[in-house]
Amino acid sequence: MPQRLNEVIRRAGKLMVEYQSPKVFDKGNHADFVTEADIAVQDYLLGELSRLFPTAKFFAEEKDDNVLTDDLTFIVDPIDGTTNYFRRRRCSMISIGAVENRRPVFCAMLDPYHNELFTAQQGKGAFCNGERLHVSDTPLEHAIVSFGTAPYYSELFELTARTVGEMLPRIADIRRSGSACIDLTDTAAGRSDAMVEWRLQPWDYCAGTLLVQEAGGRCGNIMGGDVTFEQRIPFMAANPRIFDAVQAMLQEIRRTHTPDVIL
Amino acid sequence: MPQRLNEVIRRAGKLMVEYQSPKVFDKGNHADFVTEADIAVQDYLLGELSRLFPTAKFFAEEKDDNVLTDDLTFIVDPIDGTTNYFRRRRCSMISIGAVENRRPVFCAMLDPYHNELFTAQQGKGAFCNGERLHVSDTPLEHAIVSFGTAPYYSELFELTARTVGEMLPRIADIRRSGSACIDLTDTAAGRSDAMVEWRLQPWDYCAGTLLVQEAGGRCGNIMGGDVTFEQRIPFMAANPRIFDAVQAMLQEIRRTHTPDVIL
Repeated sequence: MPQRLNEVIRRAGKLMVEYQSPKVFDKGNHADFVTEADIAVQDYLLGELSRLFPTAKFFAEEKDDNVLTDDLTFIVDPIDGTTNYFRRRRCSMISIGAVENRRPVFCAMLDPYHNELFTAQQGKGAFCNGERLHVSDTPLEHAIVSFGTAPYYSELFELTARTVGEMLPRIADIRRSGSACIDLTDTAAGRSDAMVEWRLQPWDYCAGTLLVQEAGGRCGNIMGGDVTFEQRIPFMAANPRIFDAVQAMLQEIRRTHTPDVIL
Repeated sequence: MPQRLNEVIRRAGKLMVEYQSPKVFDKGNHADFVTEADIAVQDYLLGELSRLFPTAKFFAEEKDDNVLTDDLTFIVDPIDGTTNYFRRRRCSMISIGAVENRRPVFCAMLDPYHNELFTAQQGKGAFCNGERLHVSDTPLEHAIVSFGTAPYYSELFELTARTVGEMLPRIADIRRSGSACIDLTDTAAGRSDAMVEWRLQPWDYCAGTLLVQEAGGRCGNIMGGDVTFEQRIPFMAANPRIFDAVQAMLQEIRRTHTPDVIL
């Protein structure tokens, strides 16, 4: 069945890159946009996946009634990195995670600009275009950490800026791509060593969590515990060598941060 | 003569991407590295450019005795984004700026991963693979600002973090690519609206300055005045609609920042 999933996501990728000047709509939050391409890709994916998996449920970015049950559920981001997409930054992905009993079981993520298809199945490893992926073993002082700015949530900007300031002296450098999925595929492929964002939605990290874990990395709620997929969480992923140190650093930043914010 | 320059930079790009696992050397500063590929590309470029322009002088990242005079001088970064390069992030460029009487007269910048050759001549426009480039007209509240972290200068980390915190609420979002040249070509191509870095070296911004200016953008010293090429400066570029507002914001951040830092 994953093979059929791969065909579907590749056709969705063609649809995504064929738009020349997609119409852009404001979703109401700071810097939160959707384009007609997001809608078209999501409609296409939900239609095709419904035919392949008639009993599956769906949880998707451009859909209002998202509830997670124990049933097989596709958690879908039709275009992750929407601003990059309509600014022609070539840094956006289609992300499909399949969850059963609330745990990810398989996933596919496509970077249509570099023709890279990332796939994973629980217990069977992570791959890019069929080639096995492994996270890095970089120590903290040489680490590249991808971070998200949680751009739709202005109450988190100060915490995010403080995180940058506290991390920079202790790592090699930060990156900010504008796509959580790119940050997670980079982490799985060893191009980054960690990714952190103070508030992230399940469709942003569901597929990428399985990919990173199957590539030998760790993912978690920054404040402790495993990744869950019901609702947004403070999210992090890292190679196993630095996971605990990055998590402890972030928890300390949160603990000493004023003003208080709900994560 | 620019046509010959284009051939040289494209051959240098092949040399750059052919390295499978380039040896990496520490340059002594925080996160400051050079690879054997940087050296090989620089040696190749300086050799070829010396044959094409026998009287020209050179000013280059991996060269120790850089002095700028009024003579025709090539300001060269053999691989901008060295960390991205050896981490296989496909986000690095070769940058060649030609300066005469201390002003840029022509340039070529190559992104070998996306086969994009950016070129400009003074007064004749900026191009990507022969297609005319134009900066964006995005207003500040929707702007994407690429920023550099000045990663070799730990005394600037706090100022950089504060810049992120002050900018985020007033723009759409930030990006951090890890290559100033990518940030400048993005600005020239309208994929970003501005780029800022509190300390940047002439080889990082020389070619990109001409490219952005010829694409209709503005570049300057953050603290005021035109871009100069003798030594590192606090650098910014932006579309003309937001240049003054971004500069005023940055000057205010610098003015109210403690502890004091020399830029």
